Amino acid sequence: MGCFITFEGIEGCGKSTQIRKLASLLEEQGKKVTLTREPGGCGIADQIRAILLDSANSAMVPLTELLLYAAARAQHISEVIKPALAKGDIVLCDRFIDATIAYQGHGRRLDLELINSLNILAAGDCRPDLTLLLDCPVATGLERALARIEALGAFASSTAREERFERESLEFHERVRSGYLSLAASEPERFCVIDASGTVDEIFAAIESRLVAKLAS
Amino acid sequence: MGCFITFEGIEGCGKSTQIRKLASLLEEQGKKVTLTREPGGCGIADQIRAILLDSANSAMVPLTELLLYAAARAQHISEVIKPALAKGDIVLCDRFIDATIAYQGHGRRLDLELINSLNILAAGDCRPDLTLLLDCPVATGLERALARIEALGAFASSTAREERFERESLEFHERVRSGYLSLAASEPERFCVIDASGTVDEIFAAIESRLVAKLAS
Repeated sequence: MGCFITFEGIEGCGKSTQIRKLASLLEEQGKKVTLTREPGGCGIADQIRAILLDSANSAMVPLTELLLYAAARAQHISEVIKPALAKGDIVLCDRFIDATIAYQGHGRRLDLELINSLNILAAGDCRPDLTLLLDCPVATGLERALARIEALGAFASSTAREERFERESLEFHERVRSGYLSLAASEPERFCVIDASGTVDEIFAAIESRLVAKLAS
Repeated sequence: MGCFITFEGIEGCGKSTQIRKLASLLEEQGKKVTLTREPGGCGIADQIRAILLDSANSAMVPLTELLLYAAARAQHISEVIKPALAKGDIVLCDRFIDATIAYQGHGRRLDLELINSLNILAAGDCRPDLTLLLDCPVATGLERALARIEALGAFASSTAREERFERESLEFHERVRSGYLSLAASEPERFCVIDASGTVDEIFAAIESRLVAKLAS
């Protein structure tokens, strides 16, 4: 069996950069890596993702949203994560079950019990071996995310993801961050909290050293 | 509050023809009618329907399929059915919760307990006041459905729905029919079983008389 590592954190925490860097490093070391993300990660789940992230779908009710996340997750696990783990890959996944608890549960204040039961239904025994929570102040994350939008120019800034993101308030992101931190506190064996307020290289060095320590333990 | 009537039955039972005839009759009588269908019935649910019925999505796992049906249903109920009932409409819906039990549960033999719990989650207290089950032998239904495909010509016969339908076996449709009949037997107060082996006019006459009797009781 392989090893299942998830990356979590608020917008602008640097997750996507760091997960790619880690994938490259592991591949240089000769390891087989499956790099994936949620929601999405395979054809059917990507179709579901498109419905979830389409800003034209603002009439979507919370229950529909949670069921769509669960549907995408069930497909992604069955089609990508489990087969990759079965052949011994290291699976790196950008967001997983904790993101639903932090964003939909703590951020949007949807029913945490319902979220937990849908997570159990969709993911079953497919739990991460390790979850790297990249934690930084909300202001730092927002600054980085806005800089990225500006760097991408006006065209890219109109994408659904950014639109949705910009609509959310500061308080929302504070609740997401607190939600993540309380998840980490409740499962210290699974979570590594990484200080993500520094530079790309500083964050990566922290990930590397924590990973070495964790995998050796 | 309005009145919620669902139409159920195997392929080729004549549901879609009969539901349109009933809608016309009720409108002629001056009643306000909302005519809708599942999966689908509103923009977001139609997007989910497109994923469910796309024959290119044959890798879809059963759990994903059930969660997508539930997601579409939750949205349809919230956006269409409940508001229509609240303003006093008669809501006529082509397939609803019983279709998931008959097709996915009995036909495809997915976990009935899971289907029931997802139906309860998605539909909550939104139960049909009356369910018209149009029952006919599978051979009759298949003959009608195939005649319809031929009448539509080669172009239409390549649509996803027909493709999916043709892939299923006779035994599958027998299981769906039995599933529907056992549902009707378990809830005789809600169900009216209509003999749908006759002509369009014969079936409609049966629906009318049963409906008058039911609504008067």
